[in-house]
Amino acid sequence: MNMQKKVAILMGAKGDLNTVKKAADKLVELGAQYEMHVMSAHRTPDEATAFAKNAINAGFCVIIATAGKAAHLAGVLAANTTLPVIAIPLKSSALDGLDALLSSVQMPTGIPVATVAIDNAENAAILACQMIALFDDDMRQRLEKMKCDIRDAILKDDASIQDL
Amino acid sequence: MNMQKKVAILMGAKGDLNTVKKAADKLVELGAQYEMHVMSAHRTPDEATAFAKNAINAGFCVIIATAGKAAHLAGVLAANTTLPVIAIPLKSSALDGLDALLSSVQMPTGIPVATVAIDNAENAAILACQMIALFDDDMRQRLEKMKCDIRDAILKDDASIQDL
Amino acid sequence: MNMQKKVAILMGAKGDLNTVKKAADKLVELGAQYEMHVMSAHRTPDEATAFAKNAINAGFCVIIATAGKAAHLAGVLAANTTLPVIAIPLKSSALDGLDALLSSVQMPTGIPVATVAIDNAENAAILACQMIALFDDDMRQRLEKMKCDIRDAILKDDASIQDL
Amino acid sequence: MNMQKKVAILMGAKGDLNTVKKAADKLVELGAQYEMHVMSAHRTPDEATAFAKNAINAGFCVIIATAGKAAHLAGVLAANTTLPVIAIPLKSSALDGLDALLSSVQMPTGIPVATVAIDNAENAAILACQMIALFDDDMRQRLEKMKCDIRDAILKDDASIQDL
Amino acid sequence: MNMQKKVAILMGAKGDLNTVKKAADKLVELGAQYEMHVMSAHRTPDEATAFAKNAINAGFCVIIATAGKAAHLAGVLAANTTLPVIAIPLKSSALDGLDALLSSVQMPTGIPVATVAIDNAENAAILACQMIALFDDDMRQRLEKMKCDIRDAILKDDASIQDL
Amino acid sequence: MNMQKKVAILMGAKGDLNTVKKAADKLVELGAQYEMHVMSAHRTPDEATAFAKNAINAGFCVIIATAGKAAHLAGVLAANTTLPVIAIPLKSSALDGLDALLSSVQMPTGIPVATVAIDNAENAAILACQMIALFDDDMRQRLEKMKCDIRDAILKDDASIQDL
Amino acid sequence: MNMQKKVAILMGAKGDLNTVKKAADKLVELGAQYEMHVMSAHRTPDEATAFAKNAINAGFCVIIATAGKAAHLAGVLAANTTLPVIAIPLKSSALDGLDALLSSVQMPTGIPVATVAIDNAENAAILACQMIALFDDDMRQRLEKMKCDIRDAILKDDASIQDL
Amino acid sequence: MNMQKKVAILMGAKGDLNTVKKAADKLVELGAQYEMHVMSAHRTPDEATAFAKNAINAGFCVIIATAGKAAHLAGVLAANTTLPVIAIPLKSSALDGLDALLSSVQMPTGIPVATVAIDNAENAAILACQMIALFDDDMRQRLEKMKCDIRDAILKDDASIQDL
Repeated sequence: MNMQKKVAILMGAKGDLNTVKKAADKLVELGAQYEMHVMSAHRTPDEATAFAKNAINAGFCVIIATAGKAAHLAGVLAANTTLPVIAIPLKSSALDGLDALLSSVQMPTGIPVATVAIDNAENAAILACQMIALFDDDMRQRLEKMKCDIRDAILKDDASIQDL
Repeated sequence: MNMQKKVAILMGAKGDLNTVKKAADKLVELGAQYEMHVMSAHRTPDEATAFAKNAINAGFCVIIATAGKAAHLAGVLAANTTLPVIAIPLKSSALDGLDALLSSVQMPTGIPVATVAIDNAENAAILACQMIALFDDDMRQRLEKMKCDIRDAILKDDASIQDL
Repeated sequence: MNMQKKVAILMGAKGDLNTVKKAADKLVELGAQYEMHVMSAHRTPDEATAFAKNAINAGFCVIIATAGKAAHLAGVLAANTTLPVIAIPLKSSALDGLDALLSSVQMPTGIPVATVAIDNAENAAILACQMIALFDDDMRQRLEKMKCDIRDAILKDDASIQDL
Repeated sequence: MNMQKKVAILMGAKGDLNTVKKAADKLVELGAQYEMHVMSAHRTPDEATAFAKNAINAGFCVIIATAGKAAHLAGVLAANTTLPVIAIPLKSSALDGLDALLSSVQMPTGIPVATVAIDNAENAAILACQMIALFDDDMRQRLEKMKCDIRDAILKDDASIQDL
Repeated sequence: MNMQKKVAILMGAKGDLNTVKKAADKLVELGAQYEMHVMSAHRTPDEATAFAKNAINAGFCVIIATAGKAAHLAGVLAANTTLPVIAIPLKSSALDGLDALLSSVQMPTGIPVATVAIDNAENAAILACQMIALFDDDMRQRLEKMKCDIRDAILKDDASIQDL
Repeated sequence: MNMQKKVAILMGAKGDLNTVKKAADKLVELGAQYEMHVMSAHRTPDEATAFAKNAINAGFCVIIATAGKAAHLAGVLAANTTLPVIAIPLKSSALDGLDALLSSVQMPTGIPVATVAIDNAENAAILACQMIALFDDDMRQRLEKMKCDIRDAILKDDASIQDL
Repeated sequence: MNMQKKVAILMGAKGDLNTVKKAADKLVELGAQYEMHVMSAHRTPDEATAFAKNAINAGFCVIIATAGKAAHLAGVLAANTTLPVIAIPLKSSALDGLDALLSSVQMPTGIPVATVAIDNAENAAILACQMIALFDDDMRQRLEKMKCDIRDAILKDDASIQDL
Repeated sequence: MNMQKKVAILMGAKGDLNTVKKAADKLVELGAQYEMHVMSAHRTPDEATAFAKNAINAGFCVIIATAGKAAHLAGVLAANTTLPVIAIPLKSSALDGLDALLSSVQMPTGIPVATVAIDNAENAAILACQMIALFDDDMRQRLEKMKCDIRDAILKDDASIQDL
């Protein structure tokens, strides 16, 4: 059995780097490895297909894909692998990301894509780590700790506004 | 120079046949040839990609693709050919086809998809024939005649309600 | 290390059973275990919270939650566990499931919910199995086989319409 | 009988303080007491649940909750108390607050949430005071006076533009 | 001090009676009194205005108003009283109640309307009773009991599906 | 017979003056008289009602009403007069004016409101003048001339870009 | 001066006759004359243009146009006349008439179209009569009477439900 | 046979020039000829109609039309020619271009309009060139080369982020 811990982060265009970087940072923070690529369902379809077909052999466990408008990247990847694929719909268009959300989430039966909130790259990373934690108890503990930290931050915020 | 007159009609699922059939009938009516396939961006991605890459050699001039929900078929085909690709978004989902419309029309720069109205297979066929008419004067004449017939039908409808 | 293979399927109301049953059937087909409960973020909040807090100890690896309208169940569960939570937004309201989709997917940073298409219970099950396959090679093989079967069904459909 | 006059104002994140502050100011202006907290359905679910369960004993009569995106805070509170819960959906996301509006208002039968306009914290405060006025005649008079003041302001605005 | 317990239920058209009746039934079940009228912001504006202005003197504590399309009834009532006004947006139009929802909830500052889910008359009644419970401990106890009953029904549903 | 030529321009809040001013300017340009008021369906309901009931006697022929969010002003006026009422939905809210558009246009049978495009005050004025032209041939000629001027401006724009 | 009282009712397709008929019936009920035609912006553009250009000479005072989907008929007519043009957007498409509503109401500056509610042919007729009443006191009286009848019907409905 | 290679680019208002210019630049880059005009379905309907009727004789093979709001220009042109008409819906209104998209794409049977993404003028030009390539092998080769260039740019972007 070969339980991989490396996450692929694929973005449809280099311009999405700032948003996508937050996923990478969160993966590092949670102790996961990652590889990041610009890759497009429409502009480099062969590379996207090949990447997905080879992803398991290349040692990936989860793929995070991000795209805007008619966001097909996650779907194309999911069509070519049995790894879980997470989509981050981007608000890069006139329609505030509603087009990317629907293009990502409304996948046909047989080929699911796990969609997170518009532009929420951190959540894609956390979801990937939740999957890794299924076979990695250290990751589980880091996730539990992160959950405590998130709680503590809110409690601290609450305390801080009591002084106003 | 090799001016083809054959249109490919691709549907994401056999269940769309009734809608798609109207495109085929209209092509026949307008004197175009066609070939029809069930082919899916997500379920048979290799076949869809291969079809698109080979479409010019196979003698096609236009591809009509139809899909519902996260309708990626037209986009995947357009990514793999320089032939014009026409999308018919289908009302096959909870969201009345708005998801299919946005997934079809909001393509990124470089890879256009010519989108027609939700469920309007006839219009996809007519648009394909308008493209064929660019190099086929007989098709032009059939289109002009069809336009006259459409006008006559309205005039006749108008006359008929004057008797009410 | 304790790699669980049991999936929890939670529905907000018993009336959703017909839709949710498809997730259960798909899990069985793919060789995963499951437990199914009616449980509500709003009507049985204590039970839902307790379930989520105890889910890891109870041997679950993934939670599938389904609800309509202001669909909070998946979010409430995700707030109380570090297991991956998959949401199936339901078309149970006047707004065709758009409310459930947005209530499920637009989660705040730190608490992701993996959202699949409206009413698509099968895809929730498949996504859960893709997660299980991260540590279970037999599941991987069953998923690969299912992918082949899906492809074969389309190819067969394609062949069948050539006879028309 | 113990008719309380204290309102709880709960916000999902400290970043919402500027919007939420307007509810506090309006409560003060109308002579109601209030307590304000940062508290999250997803990040501090135990605290939110405990707060709601204890709200009556703690002397609250109404709870105002505000959140953006998949706005579950008001719903989680309403699930755990029989006090009226007022939701202010926030425009904090890509979708202009439509997600927060639907997540707040589309509650299931049995657990209502009284939803006011997107970002309208003043109206949440006024609605809370209208509830307090059910048992507090002084509040009724202050509300009646506020209504007159609102009217007078419009009449004055009308007079002022006649001079243009 | 005059703490009234009577709720007004106003519907914009008699055709809404079936939906509105559920509010009346729920009020009876929870021990509140009610009076029910057909009254329209647009077709009987004088009667609606007069009703709202006189509602306190007539012994009402809360007004529930229901209308579809450009649903102005709740707003017109709220403009003429300081009693809390609850709106039930109706799905009576082409747009599935989205028009009624936005017309009800997006009220300007100073004149709140407490909006519940589309077509959810029961929740309007429960919200009214939550307001009455602010000064009526018996109502509080009936609401607490109803909450328990709702929970028990879900638990029973959960038990029932374990036998499948 | 008393064919009036004075148009009432009513705005829900003084803050709308800049937008509304364009209607006034266009009326002046087209030779119509106008009176302009701040008046609110919700904040000065009595004044709005009285204005509408008295509008014919006060010499008005058309009423233009403008409001944002849950835009009820035009509807309230239409409920109280048989003069034509024109609504300008304003983009003053989180939802880009979609709420104001639906609140204005979706009026119930019996009480129409003539709705123009979001924020398009000039078109409301032109529509009012088209109504005045029904009994005023001079207005008709000014409208015909304006139509020519609009055409000429486009032709001039077209000529100007030929030099690029 | 030539004050016409004849209304044109134009429908984009004969299939809309049932909806449009209600406008004709209401015009008759209110004592207006009408002429009804099937005429299409897209299928008989010359006829539509010619009709609009000649409408004043042909004795029309108002044009009512009705179409679904990309509803251009009212806009095309308004482009070719200075008569007021009223649009009835039809729910004839997948998108519940939202497409027809936006295509009708969002006209550019200079060319207004008076839009009424989706499918509400009666209101188009009443609005036309309100315009006729600007120069026809008998029509004014019939409109006033209709307003009273509408009010009486609601009062009667109100009385009827008191007996339940 | 007369295979034309000239594309018409028509914009509804001169203010759209900056967006539309990108279509012209792309046509030049791909070796197509073009003519560009300001022309409006509503403000210069005769010119627009005449242009469409004469377009074939004037040597055009494709028409690109761009407009915002109730975007009727493409539809009006398509009504008057059998040439393919491509619509670029513009984000020029309050509704982010959704109105222009629906007004462009939802055409009735018989009169298709090939719609591309909101504001995507380049894609309209590329689609036009894909049609020209049906009878012009040199254009086909330039399109194939452009496709390679697009791919290379992504591969280069991918390489560049590996150095971060």
